[in-house]
Amino acid sequence: MTSGTIHGIGLGPGDPDLMSVRADRLVRGARHVAYFRKAGRIGRARRMVDGMLRADVVEHAMDYPVTTEIAVSDPRYNACLSAFYADCTARLAAVTAGGEDVAVLCEGDPFFYGSFMHLHARLAGRAPVRIVPGVTGMSGAWTATDRPITWGDDVLTIATATLPEEELVRRIRDTDALVVMKIGRHLAKLRRAVAAAGRTSAAWLVEYAAMPEQRVVRLADAGDTAPYFAILLIHGEGRRP
Amino acid sequence: MTSGTIHGIGLGPGDPDLMSVRADRLVRGARHVAYFRKAGRIGRARRMVDGMLRADVVEHAMDYPVTTEIAVSDPRYNACLSAFYADCTARLAAVTAGGEDVAVLCEGDPFFYGSFMHLHARLAGRAPVRIVPGVTGMSGAWTATDRPITWGDDVLTIATATLPEEELVRRIRDTDALVVMKIGRHLAKLRRAVAAAGRTSAAWLVEYAAMPEQRVVRLADAGDTAPYFAILLIHGEGRRP
Ligand SMILES: C[S@@+](CC[C@H](N)C(=O)[O-])C[C@H]1O[C@@H](n2cnc3c(N)ncnc32)[C@H](O)[C@@H]1O
Ligand SMILES: C[S@@+](CC[C@H](N)C(=O)[O-])C[C@H]1O[C@@H](n2cnc3c(N)ncnc32)[C@H](O)[C@@H]1O
Repeated sequence: MTSGTIHGIGLGPGDPDLMSVRADRLVRGARHVAYFRKAGRIGRARRMVDGMLRADVVEHAMDYPVTTEIAVSDPRYNACLSAFYADCTARLAAVTAGGEDVAVLCEGDPFFYGSFMHLHARLAGRAPVRIVPGVTGMSGAWTATDRPITWGDDVLTIATATLPEEELVRRIRDTDALVVMKIGRHLAKLRRAVAAAGRTSAAWLVEYAAMPEQRVVRLADAGDTAPYFAILLIHGEGRRP
Repeated sequence: MTSGTIHGIGLGPGDPDLMSVRADRLVRGARHVAYFRKAGRIGRARRMVDGMLRADVVEHAMDYPVTTEIAVSDPRYNACLSAFYADCTARLAAVTAGGEDVAVLCEGDPFFYGSFMHLHARLAGRAPVRIVPGVTGMSGAWTATDRPITWGDDVLTIATATLPEEELVRRIRDTDALVVMKIGRHLAKLRRAVAAAGRTSAAWLVEYAAMPEQRVVRLADAGDTAPYFAILLIHGEGRRP
């Protein structure tokens, strides 16, 4: 039997209208659909395709193990996630071994800080994988601010708020334009870093870009917490004829 | 009369199948379509929508003024481009003043180093503008290499090859993952910079990502020239459970 293919499908930032034509077609045609989610949640990727799936679709929810009681620095954290990804890989590979394709739903672009990458790396040699690039969350975010992110020869630095505070300060000082991902619990640290770099007045926080709850605020006006789907932006001011 | 709207439409990296559902719908329905091109060429954005336009479409080609004999540093270069963008803005605003919409075709994502940004800035207060974000050329490029660009807390630096050589070296030394845009005539300088930063063996050159002529080579195996549509990549190697 010929192996099925695993499609890592970028869904874009949120609005289903921003899925690519290819992603839309693959999602609507898929017999098997897989997606990550927090245990007990519907999952944002799954919610983005609400109403698009075949009546006879088989859903493979991949529930993240609860790791809140293990520190990220603890080796057991990585071991736990690694076992989880190995298990997900085996589940999907079993479907393709039966000759069927699987559509894996990915937020934004699959190869940009995406969870599917952990399956992709493990699937090498086990099943054919094809990636459908998507509009990133950050493109959704700068579009929401109605201002371009980079002009001329601006340098754009993309960092995650998980970095140490001093490193954030250094990076923010040394760039024209800035995107910070994965803010969540790190908002207070990120805000201090932006202030230390002297750029608070230029910084914007975009929550839920291209989703119904979209919210664009100056960092100075943001609250004390940010949701998982939040991106900090500083727009470049480069050369413009 | 109500003003028409100008839609800055991200077409994605090249393959029409990677346009968003919204972009696809707007392009197919547009009575007025506008796009930049080099004088005498069809234009890549225009070519991406071949076969998609209405039979009665009105095309507004915006031909870049020939500037090859003026140095970029010469003030006349900026003056010439500025007059050109002002003229394009007036042309599009005239269409919307007549109550009709215009679809402006943009490569990749309109707000990421895009030419349409120069019209967007000038249109403020003259006509309503709506942006449709798109898959960037760089997403097309890293997808073409079949490897993720960023993991965990990797820092991604995006720079243009137009920067001075020493600045490129410094930036390449100080990042996990790298994307370099606008390579063109700067390939030799960029290659020296990557070598000086000790990262030649990790660097990839992607030409015409997601276009029929797509080509992925190691930088070490690249020729002496690169086309306009070329991106250099160094993939991050960050944390992966
Ligand atoms: C694991 S990364 C996945 C990134 C995704 N692959 C992409 O291309 O955007 C998750 C982070 O992406 C950002 N993000 C993704 N989509 C977003 C959106 N629509 N609005 C705000 N932030 C978003 C947030 O910073 C979030 O913490
Ligand atoms: C004026 S910028 C426009 C970028 C575009 N707005 C985007 O989102 O990718 C032009 C540069 O984008 C890069 N580029 C855009 N699309 C590309 C593609 N499909 N393949 C390779 N390079 C591309 C090249 O480096 C080119 O010099």
